[in-house]
Amino acid sequence: MGFRLIVKDKKTKARLGKLTTAHGLIDTPCFMPVGTQGTVKGISPAQLEEAGAQIVLSNAYHLFLRPGIEIIKKAGGLHKFMNWQQPILTDSGGYQVFSLALLRKLSDEGVEFQSHIDGFRHFITPEEVIRIQADLGSDIIMPLDECVHYPCSRDQAEVAMERTVEWAKRSRAVVSCQLSVVREKQMLFGIIQGATYDDLRKECAARITEIGFDGYAVGGVSVGEPKNLMYNTLEFIADFLPQERARYCMGVGLPEDIIEAVAEGIDMFDCVVPTRYGRNGTAFTSAGKFIIRNAAFAQDLSALDDKCGCYTCKNFSRAYLRHLFNTEEMLGPQLVSLHNIHFYLGLMRDIREAISKDRFTEFKKGFLAGYNVKLCA
Amino acid sequence: MGFRLIVKDKKTKARLGKLTTAHGLIDTPCFMPVGTQGTVKGISPAQLEEAGAQIVLSNAYHLFLRPGIEIIKKAGGLHKFMNWQQPILTDSGGYQVFSLALLRKLSDEGVEFQSHIDGFRHFITPEEVIRIQADLGSDIIMPLDECVHYPCSRDQAEVAMERTVEWAKRSRAVVSCQLSVVREKQMLFGIIQGATYDDLRKECAARITEIGFDGYAVGGVSVGEPKNLMYNTLEFIADFLPQERARYCMGVGLPEDIIEAVAEGIDMFDCVVPTRYGRNGTAFTSAGKFIIRNAAFAQDLSALDDKCGCYTCKNFSRAYLRHLFNTEEMLGPQLVSLHNIHFYLGLMRDIREAISKDRFTEFKKGFLAGYNVKLCA
Repeated sequence: MGFRLIVKDKKTKARLGKLTTAHGLIDTPCFMPVGTQGTVKGISPAQLEEAGAQIVLSNAYHLFLRPGIEIIKKAGGLHKFMNWQQPILTDSGGYQVFSLALLRKLSDEGVEFQSHIDGFRHFITPEEVIRIQADLGSDIIMPLDECVHYPCSRDQAEVAMERTVEWAKRSRAVVSCQLSVVREKQMLFGIIQGATYDDLRKECAARITEIGFDGYAVGGVSVGEPKNLMYNTLEFIADFLPQERARYCMGVGLPEDIIEAVAEGIDMFDCVVPTRYGRNGTAFTSAGKFIIRNAAFAQDLSALDDKCGCYTCKNFSRAYLRHLFNTEEMLGPQLVSLHNIHFYLGLMRDIREAISKDRFTEFKKGFLAGYNVKLCA
Repeated sequence: MGFRLIVKDKKTKARLGKLTTAHGLIDTPCFMPVGTQGTVKGISPAQLEEAGAQIVLSNAYHLFLRPGIEIIKKAGGLHKFMNWQQPILTDSGGYQVFSLALLRKLSDEGVEFQSHIDGFRHFITPEEVIRIQADLGSDIIMPLDECVHYPCSRDQAEVAMERTVEWAKRSRAVVSCQLSVVREKQMLFGIIQGATYDDLRKECAARITEIGFDGYAVGGVSVGEPKNLMYNTLEFIADFLPQERARYCMGVGLPEDIIEAVAEGIDMFDCVVPTRYGRNGTAFTSAGKFIIRNAAFAQDLSALDDKCGCYTCKNFSRAYLRHLFNTEEMLGPQLVSLHNIHFYLGLMRDIREAISKDRFTEFKKGFLAGYNVKLCA
């Protein structure tokens, strides 16, 4: 288990790597389709596999609330419960506790919150969050952290950073001292917080890497800040992360964000965008993203993306997909989500190929030039 | 093109047949999954094919309103537009004009109605309905008819029956005199109306078969009448339909209805039930139908139907499917709809096999006995 750095790009910080987990290999840079509740919205595991997904992300907070950990344990773990035999990363739910839960009460010990579903009150500690993910059996475990939104004062950001570090220590300790199953079959990543304050980011990176984790995530990005601040954070933080560990940029992002972040040395991404946009009828294509409901496509019998080989693009026209959305037919969201997942995974394959052939900068330039062509949207 | 009767059951009126169309063979008795708007809700054409569907039903009324016939013609017909290369039967929309449209005004000439979508006013004649279906390129075309609901007075039923016969004549005439493309590549079925009045049914059957069609449909059943009245109609009408033509029972039905209707000599069925129920979390299984949201399934790791080999049953548990419905995840409706379609098509295969092996009555008894086991629903 672990990360192996294969090639470093000469002109940027982009890296080609392989992450080995108990459920198989992941080629990096990689994109993780998001299956928050144990399902990537509208896409079957068979379709995900066919699209070339090597890992999916799920969420401990959501699964803890519904269906509950007991039935997933009884099923033999999350892989079996959701019928996905390749790697799974589970997010701790830190972000969700801070964005979804009601009436949360934070202390150093842990966080008390009310379920956003039924108002039921829960108290959860960093140790419990690790144990939940041990029960889920995910290949990569994320510790509980405190994620702040943008804008956020320096004081607030510092308190959240301190707490994130303390909780990271406790998470590391519970794995090291008690959970041999996690040590043997799962990886624990550390999360760098610090909002948009470089000094806090630097301090957090130093303290988190000092504790020592199997990989490092940049959290608290893509939380409402302007893009240049996000890119700045990624550029700045790269130098404070060890080369020999995978780097994961949480919740990012649009294709152009991913390409920029790869150039800053990020190896792993997750984002709800391909399925959320797909569900709402926005397609990502090599010529940019566009809204399929647009009247311009009413008589357009061409494929969503003529450079794409997915089931949607091989078999259906824009006019047909538009008809499905106009008539509120389920197949519309299904087919456009499927295409978008293919597009994202294809983008990652192209990125990896470009890095391996030492032409990542050219690829980046070419992709962004083609992608900026606006398609009637 | 046409229907070939292969075997008649000795104890019932059940028939085994083959219907040859321009887009391929259909083994009968058959079930046609319903793709009202040019898509079987939540199921891709590839999945339908894998489930063994040999024909799907679509609806001229809906397609005429959205996306309009022009784009479907431009795509090369409905098969190409919706990416389904096997046979398609299109319903005329008679039923929809009477159940969905607003402010309809009926005359012998045709029907004026307002679209249920945008209130736009349309006037449509039987001839136009045929021309629309000629443009769609469906393999089996249904004429415009007047379908009455239950209960319905004898007078009303008689007027509707008379109009249905007149419109059938005009539909037949426009095909015979003007539309050689229909004569060469499409089949036109006649529809028997007459509500629950045996004498009207008998008269309608005589006059419709006198006109002469490629197949005969029993319309105006499953419109709210008690089941025994529907079974009576099917039993009564069988003797007035020619043996050498396919018989189609419109909009029927539940598995037990289909089995009863097969015993009365019906060859073709369509119904929204497998997908509508599937979408709402009701599964059809060999042990009866049940509601997947039921708390009884919260810890149930068995398959939806252990006798089923569909993707859903091979890969997911009841507990997982329940979780998908509880969390309003799209994959739930998709997977249960897929299973239900498999169940219906499997039922038809079992029916055909039973007839071919001269044990239909035994099959019917065994199926209904197993099916009546109530599963906590």
